[in-house]
Amino acid sequence: MRIGLDAMGGDKAPECTVKGAVMAVNSFGYHVTLIGFENEIKRHLEGLSYPQEKIDIVSATQKIEMHEAAALSVRKKRDSSIVRGADLLRQGAYDAFVSAGNTGAVVCAATLSLRLLPGVDRPGIAVIFPTLIKPCMVIDVGANIDPKPLHLLQYGIMGDAYSKQILAKKNPTIGLLNIGEESTKGTDFVKEAHMMLRESKLNFIGNVEPKEVYSGKVDIVLCDGFVGNVFLKVTEGFADAAIVLLKRELKKSSMLTKLGALLTLPAFNTIKKKIDASEYGGAPLMGVDGSVIIAHGSSNAKAIKNAIRAAAENINHKVNKHVVEELQSY
Amino acid sequence: MRIGLDAMGGDKAPECTVKGAVMAVNSFGYHVTLIGFENEIKRHLEGLSYPQEKIDIVSATQKIEMHEAAALSVRKKRDSSIVRGADLLRQGAYDAFVSAGNTGAVVCAATLSLRLLPGVDRPGIAVIFPTLIKPCMVIDVGANIDPKPLHLLQYGIMGDAYSKQILAKKNPTIGLLNIGEESTKGTDFVKEAHMMLRESKLNFIGNVEPKEVYSGKVDIVLCDGFVGNVFLKVTEGFADAAIVLLKRELKKSSMLTKLGALLTLPAFNTIKKKIDASEYGGAPLMGVDGSVIIAHGSSNAKAIKNAIRAAAENINHKVNKHVVEELQSY
Repeated sequence: MRIGLDAMGGDKAPECTVKGAVMAVNSFGYHVTLIGFENEIKRHLEGLSYPQEKIDIVSATQKIEMHEAAALSVRKKRDSSIVRGADLLRQGAYDAFVSAGNTGAVVCAATLSLRLLPGVDRPGIAVIFPTLIKPCMVIDVGANIDPKPLHLLQYGIMGDAYSKQILAKKNPTIGLLNIGEESTKGTDFVKEAHMMLRESKLNFIGNVEPKEVYSGKVDIVLCDGFVGNVFLKVTEGFADAAIVLLKRELKKSSMLTKLGALLTLPAFNTIKKKIDASEYGGAPLMGVDGSVIIAHGSSNAKAIKNAIRAAAENINHKVNKHVVEELQSY
Repeated sequence: MRIGLDAMGGDKAPECTVKGAVMAVNSFGYHVTLIGFENEIKRHLEGLSYPQEKIDIVSATQKIEMHEAAALSVRKKRDSSIVRGADLLRQGAYDAFVSAGNTGAVVCAATLSLRLLPGVDRPGIAVIFPTLIKPCMVIDVGANIDPKPLHLLQYGIMGDAYSKQILAKKNPTIGLLNIGEESTKGTDFVKEAHMMLRESKLNFIGNVEPKEVYSGKVDIVLCDGFVGNVFLKVTEGFADAAIVLLKRELKKSSMLTKLGALLTLPAFNTIKKKIDASEYGGAPLMGVDGSVIIAHGSSNAKAIKNAIRAAAENINHKVNKHVVEELQSY
């Protein structure tokens, strides 16, 4: 298994990307190619212990920053770690590419370099949310912020194939994110997507409200990339705020409450683990002709390691092959 | 102060609406008119203690259910508590109308009956979120799911007037909800709204990401009603799920952890109060020519009481007068 990693991608790169790569090499035995500023990467590799033959470096002299406009930066920075990383995947230098860098740029570079799978008009980012019962996959969380209803149907078919292969679900249920359960609710876009999904062969259960993503009622939830991204970021923002509030309250509290907080810590940690993105690894960029995994911009080394594992799973399960087969059957 | 209350609105109506009305009467001394099924209301009033002259009942023989299509139900059910409630407000039977019923129907009935304020093209629902620092107002959370950029500018002006009057903020900051801070990010709709807001006299600080709503960086956040509704419901859904997860973990835990949970309870309750919708009262329907407050469908008696208080504040501060003045100055 050979994985390419954008060493420059993410808020804590290249320190955390390099560390994460070494962790993945040592834990899973994969080969990892680090793409980025060669000297910086070498410096961070120094002192880390790993089998030398399992990591190599491909030099890229440019870096696309997190705030840069996606299409423009991909066009201009041809020697950036993201553009080079996608190109090397196309050329077969490795089996999958992982990046925690500028999401828009990764989507753009991957689409331009790898092209889309037959039957796919737009890529979509799939994120798996932990819920009360079982994981729930939300597509799209930001690849395509102004999709057509047909794109949501394609996301549904891709998510269905993914769930069957990777999550081993037999007949995954699919819901359409909406602000009400009735089919008459929502924008014209949502209503049209509803109709297309209802007429498809998918196990479509209708509109679902945001709370049902967390309740675990449905396996796959479809939405446009703008709404999906808001969904993702509201969850993160709220979780962070809740933890800060809790800590603040505890500071104000009596010694007895503080003692209590100390005692409940193990339970909190279990929950934190459940909602912790770094445990879940990266999000597959579905629809491009190659395995691309997008990791969170704030990824630490462990999150990078898990994103690399997610990339390997993607390949092991031949997700794209199954996606193409399922798309062709429609 | 005279308030009209949709006695049939909400999941727990009329029991909770009647109780909430009595609580408001006893706590604040307002007069409350209950609109709905007369016999049911009378039955629930039985045994409750309140000054008789402070509550009266207006009979309405129909009820719009939560799942009904808004426009159709308002057109057909002319003797529903929602339609009658809005009409009575227009006729001056009371100073404000409160409903925890079908939100779409309340928006529709209020718009048809009361009409919009001069300079407003669409109403918007404003919800106040508790944050780490100060409350943050989000407009719109569901009145207008397919707005034009101009409507967002109008929401900004209305929110500005509201913040100055009710929240006593001198020069409230206004942000546009987006999936990135850069002005180049987002859909065409968002980009156009961004330009209009930047050119306005409002204290516009640019795009804000969802996490910044919770961080308390900004006073007012603008978005389309679909995205705003998702925002609201993700928050609710996640908070509910987190509490269930926590309880589940605690059940599994040792006696010591359970003891800890017991000791931290006061801190949790303070936080719960902070994020508890029932503490914050209802959401003003901004832009209609009259004071209408929308309460959450799951409102308990306390939430209804607080929504009635919110309605009274709206009137006391002459919010609509200031909104009109501010709109005219643009």
